[in-house]
Amino acid sequence: MKKVNTKANAAIIVIGNEILSGRTQDVNVSFLSKWLNELGVRVNEVRIIDDSEKSIVKNINELKNKFKYIFTTGGIGPTHDDITSKSIAKAFNIKYDFHKEAYEILEKYYTPEKFNEGRKKMAKIPKGAKLIYNPSSGAPGFIVENVFCLPGVPSILQSMVHGLKDKIIGGSKILSQTITIQTVESEIAKSLEDVQKQFKNVEIGSYPFFRLGKIGVSLVIRSTKKNEIDECCKQIVSFVKKKKIEIVER
Amino acid sequence: MKKVNTKANAAIIVIGNEILSGRTQDVNVSFLSKWLNELGVRVNEVRIIDDSEKSIVKNINELKNKFKYIFTTGGIGPTHDDITSKSIAKAFNIKYDFHKEAYEILEKYYTPEKFNEGRKKMAKIPKGAKLIYNPSSGAPGFIVENVFCLPGVPSILQSMVHGLKDKIIGGSKILSQTITIQTVESEIAKSLEDVQKQFKNVEIGSYPFFRLGKIGVSLVIRSTKKNEIDECCKQIVSFVKKKKIEIVER
Repeated sequence: MKKVNTKANAAIIVIGNEILSGRTQDVNVSFLSKWLNELGVRVNEVRIIDDSEKSIVKNINELKNKFKYIFTTGGIGPTHDDITSKSIAKAFNIKYDFHKEAYEILEKYYTPEKFNEGRKKMAKIPKGAKLIYNPSSGAPGFIVENVFCLPGVPSILQSMVHGLKDKIIGGSKILSQTITIQTVESEIAKSLEDVQKQFKNVEIGSYPFFRLGKIGVSLVIRSTKKNEIDECCKQIVSFVKKKKIEIVER
Repeated sequence: MKKVNTKANAAIIVIGNEILSGRTQDVNVSFLSKWLNELGVRVNEVRIIDDSEKSIVKNINELKNKFKYIFTTGGIGPTHDDITSKSIAKAFNIKYDFHKEAYEILEKYYTPEKFNEGRKKMAKIPKGAKLIYNPSSGAPGFIVENVFCLPGVPSILQSMVHGLKDKIIGGSKILSQTITIQTVESEIAKSLEDVQKQFKNVEIGSYPFFRLGKIGVSLVIRSTKKNEIDECCKQIVSFVKKKKIEIVER
């Protein structure tokens, strides 16, 4: 598969033992990837790591200079296993302390008797971080340089990203067209490869499926250029018809 | 969160542009993690990477000596974007060529006129690799040293792992107990941290949820030692009752 050219890229770091243990099915990667794609940012790598300061610091340091944006999910709540803020501060070697604006937001959000130690902990954020507002549950996320720290609960994460649009500078949007055909991959492998060779800036992905008792292949054609996708699709449809393979969906 | 001690660990490398683009929701990580956990193997890291030889080689080389087992998913089919076999051969600096046993399996599986170039490609596997048999669709996976290469289609992957049990030497099985309570995390953060401090070999995870209009927290207590889990749960239940918080499920 050829690479679509764009420098507006990102990595996602999922911080969560519950994902690694298989107990929780992650859905944030798929949501963030689609959302970023809409903004013209391509997710090039995802890492799922354990809830340990060592792992967070190591992975942030390995990735922060390799990608334009880093998104982390998880670990910004009030309990002992929420160590993202502290670890990010350590990775960037900045102070981890009460953040005035975050403290004020949480102080307003809770009645005084409910603003307990656990809730106050959520106002401890790396010094100088910009906040990401949380319309669902008060506790903000934050941005340090190019690292965006979001919570792990999908509904809260999703409510928070909308405020981030103007902070992301994307490249050309990656467009995509899917052609679903009723065949098996090996029937089209050679012809598909021949088409791929002609389109260096188009990514052709081939994904077999077995669902509802039917066998098929979804061909996903991606590029930043619509005319190249169209031309590529035309050639695919042409060989598919020649082989008398049924097009299920386009 | 404290680490459960075990050297029987693993990393999963998901090879797939379709996961990175958000088009496909990965479900193999959760399946493999649970399956490995049953065998006493803990998944410590997951990476989702793009379909490029460079990325596969780099990530295999970075991880193969850090974990006892590496599992890869995706990229072993017949099309141009299936480059896992070739890339694994490159990472281990071994020959990539037709594998006699794999060739014979595929030759038997297909009628001669159907055993075309695409299908023959699936018999090209790193030299000396052990095969992983595929009861669903013929094409085998393979093992090179500690790297287990599986397909991306979940139903096929799931049908293949059962034959692997005797190839995995696990440590003590990680046991787990969940207590679901009707509260918010910040109400229990302090007490929970106090319990965690007493149990160095137990991992207490706290996961808030918002579903069906209800707010709650699932506390997941994990350890290889049942008696430690029991003692830890007892202390949690004790403070939960003192706080008059309802236990929804245990």
